[in-house]
Amino acid sequence: MQPVKVGLLGLGTVGGGTVNLLERNRDEITRRAGRPIDVVHAAARHPDRARTCSTEHMRLEYDAFAVVDDPDTEIIVELIGGVDLAKELTLRAIERGKHVVTANKALIALHGNEIFARARDNGVTVGFEAAVAGGIPIIKAVREGLVGNRIEWLAGIINGTSNFILSEMLYAGREFGEVLAEAQRLGYAEADPTFDVEGVDAAHKLTILASIAFGIPLQFDKVHMEGIGQISTDDVAYASELGFRIKHLGICRREGDGIGLRVHPTLLPERQLLANVDGVMNAVMVNADPLGPTLYYGAGAGADPTASAVVADLVDVVREFTLEPENRVPYLAFQSHSLSDEPVVGMEAVDTAYYLRLEAQDEPGVLAEVTGVLSQAGISIEAVIQKQPAPGAETVPVILLTHRVRESKMDAACQAIEALDAVHGSLVRIRVETLA
Amino acid sequence: MQPVKVGLLGLGTVGGGTVNLLERNRDEITRRAGRPIDVVHAAARHPDRARTCSTEHMRLEYDAFAVVDDPDTEIIVELIGGVDLAKELTLRAIERGKHVVTANKALIALHGNEIFARARDNGVTVGFEAAVAGGIPIIKAVREGLVGNRIEWLAGIINGTSNFILSEMLYAGREFGEVLAEAQRLGYAEADPTFDVEGVDAAHKLTILASIAFGIPLQFDKVHMEGIGQISTDDVAYASELGFRIKHLGICRREGDGIGLRVHPTLLPERQLLANVDGVMNAVMVNADPLGPTLYYGAGAGADPTASAVVADLVDVVREFTLEPENRVPYLAFQSHSLSDEPVVGMEAVDTAYYLRLEAQDEPGVLAEVTGVLSQAGISIEAVIQKQPAPGAETVPVILLTHRVRESKMDAACQAIEALDAVHGSLVRIRVETLA
Repeated sequence: MQPVKVGLLGLGTVGGGTVNLLERNRDEITRRAGRPIDVVHAAARHPDRARTCSTEHMRLEYDAFAVVDDPDTEIIVELIGGVDLAKELTLRAIERGKHVVTANKALIALHGNEIFARARDNGVTVGFEAAVAGGIPIIKAVREGLVGNRIEWLAGIINGTSNFILSEMLYAGREFGEVLAEAQRLGYAEADPTFDVEGVDAAHKLTILASIAFGIPLQFDKVHMEGIGQISTDDVAYASELGFRIKHLGICRREGDGIGLRVHPTLLPERQLLANVDGVMNAVMVNADPLGPTLYYGAGAGADPTASAVVADLVDVVREFTLEPENRVPYLAFQSHSLSDEPVVGMEAVDTAYYLRLEAQDEPGVLAEVTGVLSQAGISIEAVIQKQPAPGAETVPVILLTHRVRESKMDAACQAIEALDAVHGSLVRIRVETLA
Repeated sequence: MQPVKVGLLGLGTVGGGTVNLLERNRDEITRRAGRPIDVVHAAARHPDRARTCSTEHMRLEYDAFAVVDDPDTEIIVELIGGVDLAKELTLRAIERGKHVVTANKALIALHGNEIFARARDNGVTVGFEAAVAGGIPIIKAVREGLVGNRIEWLAGIINGTSNFILSEMLYAGREFGEVLAEAQRLGYAEADPTFDVEGVDAAHKLTILASIAFGIPLQFDKVHMEGIGQISTDDVAYASELGFRIKHLGICRREGDGIGLRVHPTLLPERQLLANVDGVMNAVMVNADPLGPTLYYGAGAGADPTASAVVADLVDVVREFTLEPENRVPYLAFQSHSLSDEPVVGMEAVDTAYYLRLEAQDEPGVLAEVTGVLSQAGISIEAVIQKQPAPGAETVPVILLTHRVRESKMDAACQAIEALDAVHGSLVRIRVETLA
């Protein structure tokens, strides 16, 4: 069969990785897909710069629109990143009747609803496996592998940088700031690490995962985000003492009144597989009915893993070239006319268990006061640690683990605890999920 | 759109689970697949027996051939198990131009080459996601998600019964026979547990996984099988002391001279995720180039997980109804004309590290003799434990961990060690894989 002709937008790390993969595994891919896939035309910001990949067999130029408009390109792969220009190019490709494959999580999370509507109008596919958890085929697993299931919740380590930092804090006892600086030196974290450590990047990915899990439109603005900058090595150590590890999770779950979407540090029982995913690796756990829990683990970023997902999408698109659109896998797993308007609820309506740490006056009766407040609020306690005071200190750290409780209740109880005379400063609150 | 009409062969645990799933999640499935899926005609060995599922909206009868021949059924789901009758029915459905979905690992491992050839001649699909690792979408992940990769090796816990037994031996310190008896009481293990604990069931699944990973024909007869019946709680405990856990793995890997296919007890470093997959759960780790390692975890058996995989296949088949066969995902991941004749090598050509345990005379110089034999054979030692003798015993247990070595070399070295006067009885040998 004829080679498939691809137009590639962006020839940076991931773009170069994709070209290299298509060349290195050309035989393997052809044996599987039934035909080779060739990048015939590419756009790069600096076309003359030295590259990590060969550009011998392709036209290479500055103008990305020329690649989109080239009648020779059948599929457009968007790897330029950013949002505005990427959106413009994607919509233009769609209008030209071309299928699009993208690794751009921000683009899909923020503008996916519009992009998919236009793609539907034009009868083309938009593949975005590479946008979530890098090389892990998680979009495919949820959209297709779990197609017979009703998904109850999904929880994932979907940002490698924050997972690397938390792993180092646990295993090397190093502080957040120090590890972050190292991650920046190693190139794991961007110069501006906000997207990673504040949870924005994870929230983009969670937005996409939640839509394909529950069949709801993409709603990035409804995701509750908390970063890991406030996590101390003390908390990591206390959690460990209690049999837990702290992970930065993206979680979506059916709550009583709707769907909760949140990214925050979370204590996980150390025997949970997800708690043992360390370093820059990613993993997503999905609990589905009737299947039960499944977990998907792998490299969540980098040129090679992302290129692996881009090529998987390319082969899928090629296979579906001749398929009438209504028989293709729907963009968001559910048929476009069947998306649900189930509300996304605020954090006040979410139930989780809690890890609480506070500094209390070292005197009799304080623990009784604190637990009394929780008890009055109907919050059960699972475990308590009260530490010895540090030499010369007047306060002692008290750590409590609660049972599951509605967040609004916990907010009120925490205010009441902080108002106690014997409690100094503010509480450290970290949510706990057992994933059971 | 019109409902898809399915003919179901076998209404036992999995068949009933499939009917229940299609009914309970009918709305969810319709929203995803674009049309409902109905079982319209089913065959059961005892049509009048009480069932776990409703049979109200289907014809139900004894004769499975009548279901296959019914012009009303568009897809045949084969869940009767066994090999001969299942094969006859599957081939008949294929000849009638019907797509087939099966959960029958023995059928595919033993007769898949023939079945796929006939299916190709008749332009129909044969889905077998449910045949390997139950509800984990591992076939889809490898065939489609990793389509751009060259797979280097794959290692999986693909039999829940043997994993349950090994987990109990580790965590409860119980002996093999005792746990096996309990597994039989609980219904995890068959009355004849040979298929599970001797590795036959795992070998069926490994045969299938190896074919889709490497693009080779199904070659069940080339799989080297070892069971877990010889593993003692002593070995489980010594392995633990060395930082390892013993798992019953199916492994396929590119060795120097071909592909190795083997099922055997294996020591894994305890920090490996795969080492932490406990109880009846399954997991498969795949190392691919350029993606690196990925892992897929979930329930490997049971009515619900298997039904989940059957329904995923049904939806895939429905989506591909109108797709010309050359654009469908190939049965064994690679185009039929592109299967490889790469040889499957025997165990003598496989490299692994080794755990060795022997009983040695409690006298000076014995350890030097043993390590001398290994050293002469060019086998490096990674760790040694020599235990105190039990009260009144004349021998002491010696445990050695070696580096990777060609199996044929290790065979010779073990014979030489067993021939030493100071070594009593035969060596316990368990392979070690670091999966790194």
